[in-house]
Amino acid sequence: MSLIVQKFGGSSVANAERVLHVAKIVTDTYAKGNSVIVVVSAQGDTTDDLIAKAEEINPKASKREMDMLLSSGEQISIALLAMAIESLGYPVKSLTGWQAGFQTDSSYGNSRIRRIQSERVEHELGKGNICIVAGFQGLNRYDDITTLGRGGSDTSAVALAAALHADLCQIYTDVDGVYTADPRIANKAVKLDEISYDEMLELATLGANVLHNRSVEMAKKYNVPMEVLSSMKDLPGTQIKEVVDVEKMLIRGVARDNDVARLSIIGVPDRPGVAFKVFSTLSAKKINVDIILQSIGRDDTKDISFTVSRSHKQAAMDILEELKNSLGAKAVVCDDNVSKVSIVGAGMQSNPGVAAKMFEALGAANINIQMISTSEIKISVLIHLNDSERAVNAIHDAFII
Amino acid sequence: MSLIVQKFGGSSVANAERVLHVAKIVTDTYAKGNSVIVVVSAQGDTTDDLIAKAEEINPKASKREMDMLLSSGEQISIALLAMAIESLGYPVKSLTGWQAGFQTDSSYGNSRIRRIQSERVEHELGKGNICIVAGFQGLNRYDDITTLGRGGSDTSAVALAAALHADLCQIYTDVDGVYTADPRIANKAVKLDEISYDEMLELATLGANVLHNRSVEMAKKYNVPMEVLSSMKDLPGTQIKEVVDVEKMLIRGVARDNDVARLSIIGVPDRPGVAFKVFSTLSAKKINVDIILQSIGRDDTKDISFTVSRSHKQAAMDILEELKNSLGAKAVVCDDNVSKVSIVGAGMQSNPGVAAKMFEALGAANINIQMISTSEIKISVLIHLNDSERAVNAIHDAFII
Repeated sequence: MSLIVQKFGGSSVANAERVLHVAKIVTDTYAKGNSVIVVVSAQGDTTDDLIAKAEEINPKASKREMDMLLSSGEQISIALLAMAIESLGYPVKSLTGWQAGFQTDSSYGNSRIRRIQSERVEHELGKGNICIVAGFQGLNRYDDITTLGRGGSDTSAVALAAALHADLCQIYTDVDGVYTADPRIANKAVKLDEISYDEMLELATLGANVLHNRSVEMAKKYNVPMEVLSSMKDLPGTQIKEVVDVEKMLIRGVARDNDVARLSIIGVPDRPGVAFKVFSTLSAKKINVDIILQSIGRDDTKDISFTVSRSHKQAAMDILEELKNSLGAKAVVCDDNVSKVSIVGAGMQSNPGVAAKMFEALGAANINIQMISTSEIKISVLIHLNDSERAVNAIHDAFII
Repeated sequence: MSLIVQKFGGSSVANAERVLHVAKIVTDTYAKGNSVIVVVSAQGDTTDDLIAKAEEINPKASKREMDMLLSSGEQISIALLAMAIESLGYPVKSLTGWQAGFQTDSSYGNSRIRRIQSERVEHELGKGNICIVAGFQGLNRYDDITTLGRGGSDTSAVALAAALHADLCQIYTDVDGVYTADPRIANKAVKLDEISYDEMLELATLGANVLHNRSVEMAKKYNVPMEVLSSMKDLPGTQIKEVVDVEKMLIRGVARDNDVARLSIIGVPDRPGVAFKVFSTLSAKKINVDIILQSIGRDDTKDISFTVSRSHKQAAMDILEELKNSLGAKAVVCDDNVSKVSIVGAGMQSNPGVAAKMFEALGAANINIQMISTSEIKISVLIHLNDSERAVNAIHDAFII
C-alpha cells in the first residue's frame, strides 16, 4: 500500500461533470489499496469571479481580506469533490488549509508554508478516509487565513507529500506531461518519460508553464517523487525525480519565454563601480534581472545590456533614465521585440559541443543571437521575437530528433 | 461608549451597492464612539446557488460536506463587507465563525452554540477594529465546520452580544420593526415601539417571520436588549426587552400561521392510554404537535384532533393509519384547509375578557372556530383557511384600533 498525493487544478474541477470524473480517478487509486490525499484548486472561474466582486466594492482592498475572500473558492471545490466521492460510495473528508495544518508566514497573498501539522490528515487516513485538502491556502500565526500566491496548489500538494513522506505526488493538469518543447510551437515535440528536478526547475523558470518552480524546488529539497499527467486522458505522464538516465537523451527540452524585455545603457565611461550602481539600484526596487551582457566599447566607454520581465520594463527604464546623467551615459534604450529560447539538460554538462551545436542550428536558420547566458544545465539565447518559433523548431530538430 | 452588535441578512448584502450601504450604517455607528461587531449572512442567492451545485453532484451529500460548502457563503460576505468598510477608511477585520470562537455541538446542518471563546473578537475590538463576523456557522469539537440551521445568523448575533455583554443587539432586516399584524394582511397594522421577550417569542412561534424564536429565546435567557429595524430606511425600529409597559396596550399583535394541518382520529374506544399511545408514537418520529383537542363522543368513544405543520402531515397520517386498527378507531381524517390565528400580549393575563372579545369579533365576522388553544400570554384559534385574512383584520380592529 502506498500513500499518494493527487493534485487537480481549477479546470479539472470546473463543473459537475469534471468533478465526478476527478472523483473516479481518485477512487480508482484508492480502490487499488492506496491511501489517497487530494489537493484541489478553486473551480474554473471562481477566483476571477470573486476578484471581480471585490473590485466592484474596493479596488484597493487589503490583502488580508482578499485572502479571506479567495480562500472560499477552494472551500467550495473540496466540499463538492468530497460529495462526488460520497456518491461513489467511498469514505471521504474534506479539509480546509487550516484544518489540514498548513502553517504559513504572514505575507497575505503570497505566503510561504512554514510547516504542516499533519495530525488531522494522518488521523483521517488512519480511519480509511480519502482526504480532500484545499490547496493554495493556510493559516498564519495570528490565526488568519493566507493564500500562497501563484502555483500555490502545486506547492500545497508537494508540501503535504513531503510532510507525510508520500510515495508519489501526482500533478494532474490539462497537458499529459512535460514535453521537449511546447507542442503548439514544435510539432515534433515529444513527451518525456522522466526528467530530473534540476532540469524541471530550469524548464519551469524558462517559461514551460507545466509546473511552478516553487513546487519543484520543494520536491527537490525533500526528494518527493512527482508525476505530471493529464486529468482528461488515462495515460502515463512524466516522472520527476532526483536522478534520471542522463545518457539517454542529451537535452530534455527546449523552452521559449516571450515575457522578456532587453534594456541597454550605452556609452558609459569605463570606470569601476558602474555596473554595481546600476544593478544595486534595480535590486533595491525589487526588479529581477535575468541575462546580463557588458561590452567594452571603443573610446573608454562600455555598454551594459540586461533583460527583465515585461512587467518591470517601465520601472527599469525610469531608473536608467535617472541614472543616465550621474553615470555620464550617452543613451538608454529598450526593446521588447525579443524572446528567450533555452535548452535544458543535465547531459550537457559533460558535452562541450552542445552550445556550438545550438548556435549552428540557429545560424543555419539565419537567426541572429543578441545575448547568450549559460548555466551548468541550460543555455539561453536572446533573439528577435519574430524568430522565436522558428528557433524552437530548429533547436528541437537539431537535438531531439 | 457602548458595545453594539449589528446583524444584516442576506438581502441586505445582496450586491455591491447594498454592501456599501451597510458599510455606511456600520461606520456611522462606529463614528459615534461605539465598539461595533457586525454579523452577516451569505449574500442574497449564494446559499441557493451552492445548494444547486451540490444537488447536481450528489443529491444525498452528507451534512458535514454541505456545511463545509455552505459556510463559504458567509466567508465571502464578511470579506466583501470588510473591504467596503476599508474603502470608507475605517479599521476593520473580518472573522469566520471559528475565528470568532463559535463552538457548537456536532449536529451538522442544525447545530447549537455551546459556547463562544471571545478572546479574538475582544482583542480586535481592543485595537479599535470593527469586527465583521460570519453568522450561521461554528466549529464542533472535531474541528469541523458546522452551520446553525434556520435563523442561524440571528442566533449568532444574539450569542455574541450575550458573550460580550453588549449594550444592544440590532437585527437589521427588510421590515422596519415588529407590527401588530402582517401589514400585507391588515392594512391598519401599526409598528410597535417595544415588545417583551415573551410576547416576541409567542409572535415568532405563531408565524410572524421577523425573528426566529431561537434568537429570542437566547436574548431572553441572557437578557440581551434587541432592536429590529430596517437596513433600507433610517427609522427607529422595535425594541425587544424584558419588561414593557403592559398597561399601554392590551395585546401586542395578531399572528397568522397557514403552515398547519389538522388531523383527527375518530371513534376511539374511551379507554385510558389511548392519547398516550398516539402522541408518544408521534413524538418518537420527531413530529411536533401543536393544538390538541379531545372530545367525549356518545356511545363510549372519543375523537382526538391535533395540528401539525404541513411538512409533517403525511408522516402523521401514516402513523394514525397504522394505529387505527390496534386502537379500534373508526376513521382517521386530515384537513389542511385550516389556518391558526393568534393574539399575543402580556396584558391579557389579568384581563379575563380578552378571549370573549376575540371570539365575539370572530362571531360577528361569521367565522367558525374549529379549535382553541390558550397560554398565559396568547390565545390561538384554528379556523378555515379561507377565513384567515378576514379573521386577522376582525381581531386587529377589535383590539388595536
